Amino acid sequence: MKKILEIKKKIANDWFKTLQKKMIDQFQLIESEASKKNKKKIKYFIKREWKKSIKKEGGGTSYLLSGGKIFDKIGINQSTVSGKFKKVFRSKILGAEKNGKYWASGISVVAHMRNPKIPALHFNTRFIVTSKAWFGGGMDATPSYNDKKEKNFIHERLRAVCKLNNKNYNKYKKWCDKYFYLPHRKEPRGIGGIFFDYETKDWEKNFKFVQDLGNEFTYLTKQIIINKKKLKWTERDKDQQSYKRGRYVEFNLLYDRGTKFGLNSGGSVESILMSLPPLAKWK
Amino acid sequence: MKKILEIKKKIANDWFKTLQKKMIDQFQLIESEASKKNKKKIKYFIKREWKKSIKKEGGGTSYLLSGGKIFDKIGINQSTVSGKFKKVFRSKILGAEKNGKYWASGISVVAHMRNPKIPALHFNTRFIVTSKAWFGGGMDATPSYNDKKEKNFIHERLRAVCKLNNKNYNKYKKWCDKYFYLPHRKEPRGIGGIFFDYETKDWEKNFKFVQDLGNEFTYLTKQIIINKKKLKWTERDKDQQSYKRGRYVEFNLLYDRGTKFGLNSGGSVESILMSLPPLAKWK
Repeated sequence: MKKILEIKKKIANDWFKTLQKKMIDQFQLIESEASKKNKKKIKYFIKREWKKSIKKEGGGTSYLLSGGKIFDKIGINQSTVSGKFKKVFRSKILGAEKNGKYWASGISVVAHMRNPKIPALHFNTRFIVTSKAWFGGGMDATPSYNDKKEKNFIHERLRAVCKLNNKNYNKYKKWCDKYFYLPHRKEPRGIGGIFFDYETKDWEKNFKFVQDLGNEFTYLTKQIIINKKKLKWTERDKDQQSYKRGRYVEFNLLYDRGTKFGLNSGGSVESILMSLPPLAKWK
Repeated sequence: MKKILEIKKKIANDWFKTLQKKMIDQFQLIESEASKKNKKKIKYFIKREWKKSIKKEGGGTSYLLSGGKIFDKIGINQSTVSGKFKKVFRSKILGAEKNGKYWASGISVVAHMRNPKIPALHFNTRFIVTSKAWFGGGMDATPSYNDKKEKNFIHERLRAVCKLNNKNYNKYKKWCDKYFYLPHRKEPRGIGGIFFDYETKDWEKNFKFVQDLGNEFTYLTKQIIINKKKLKWTERDKDQQSYKRGRYVEFNLLYDRGTKFGLNSGGSVESILMSLPPLAKWK
C-alpha cells in the first residue's frame, strides 16, 4: 500500500516539473517574440535552486523573469518538500494533527503584466501527503479594470475544464471567490476563477483534472496576452494597476495560506514572496 | 478610584490631540517652506474623521499629506476607541483576558520621505485601559542606506530623553530591535530606536515620558529633514528606497501588532494602513 503512494508521489512530482518546463518554454517564446518585434533586448527566465536547511527535506526550483516586454514580473516555482510541521501549525493542516509529518509537491505561477490592460494571473496545483493525501489548487485573474468579455472568456474556459473532468465548477468558483477576498477592504482580490482543496478521493480522476488545469492555464494566459498585448495604455492605467497591486500585496501578506504554508515549512523566502508585484502603490 | 482613572484618560487623550495639532502645524510649515523655495504648489494635510460602526465606541481623526516636496507621504493619526475584544484576541492583550473590555487612546505617525537620503520615521504613543492601565509606544527610523552619523544622532537623542525620565534606554532599544525585525528575511526593519509597553506603574512619570518623547520626535524629525533636505539623490537611490519600502510593507502586514490591534478593534482601515508607503518595489 505504501509503495503505491510512493509511485503516486513520483508521478505527481514529475508532472509538476514537466509543466514548469512547458510553461517556461512557452512564456519565454511569447516574451522573446514581443521583444524582437519592438527591437528591445530580450529578457530571460533566471533559474534559482534552493534546498531546505535540512537537506533531506527537499527544496525547489524557481524561475523568474523581470522587466520584460510582456511580463513586468513572472515567477514559476516548483518545489518538493517534506518534514514535520511545528505543533501550533499542525491543527491547520488536514491529516497532520497527530505527528505533523508531511510531503508536498506543487507548482505555482504568478504573472504581473507590463500592459495594465492585461490582468495579473495566478495558478497553483499541489499534491500533499500527510496521514491523508490530496490534490488542491486553482487559478484566478486580477485585472485592474472592468472587462466583462474577458471575465466571461476566462470563466467559460474554466467551466469547460471542470465539465470535462466531472468537477463542480460552481462550487470551485464560489470557493475561489471566498478565498481571494480582502475582508478589511470588503473587496474581492480580482474576478475570481476556481479554487479547490482536499480532493482525497479518486486519485486518477483528480490527477487528470490537475493536468488539464495546468495546460488550460498555459493556454489561457497566452490567449489573454495575445488578445490584449497591442492595446494602448496610459500612465493613468498603469497607476490604476499599481494601486490594484497594493491590494494584491495586502492579500498575500495578510491572508494567503500558501504564503503561510511556505514560511511554516521552511521554504525559500525569495520563492514564496516571488508572488509580490515588482511595484505597488498606496494612497 | 474609578473617577481618577477617568480623569487620567481625559488628560492622556487631550495630550495626544494637542500633540497631533502641534505636529501638523510644524510639519506643514517645513513642507510649505520647501515648496515655496522651489516654486512648487504647496501640498496640505487633508483631514479625515471616522467613527467606529458602534457609535459610542469612538473613532479618530487622520491627517494625510501626499506628494509633497519633503514628504512623499505622511500620516498623523489620533484615535480614541473603546469596546470589547473578540474572544480569540483577548489572551493577546494585557488585562483583557476576563471580559475583553478596553479603552485606548493614542497617536501614531509614519513619514515616508521624498528624498531617499532621509529615513522613514515612525512614532507612536498610547494609553490603554483594560483591567490594567498602561502607556506604550516608541519611535524608530528606517533609512535606505547606511549613515552612521545620523544613526548615532538619533540614538543619542533617544538616550538623553530616556535619561531625563529615568527610563532604561538600553532595555527600550533592545525591545525595539527585537520588535522591528523580519524573521523571514533575517533583517531588521531599520536602525531601530526605542520601544516600550506595559508601563503600568507611576502614571505621572510615564505620562511625562510619553509627552517628552512626542516632543522629541517632532524636533528630531525636523532636524533630520533640515540636515538632509538639500542632499542630491539619483534614481538609483530612489530605487533603493523603494525596495526598502517593500520590506516595510512586509513587516507591517505580516507582523505589526498595531495593524492587528487596529483591524481587531474595528478601526478605520484607511487610517491603519496609512503607514504603508506610497510606492514599494520587489525584485
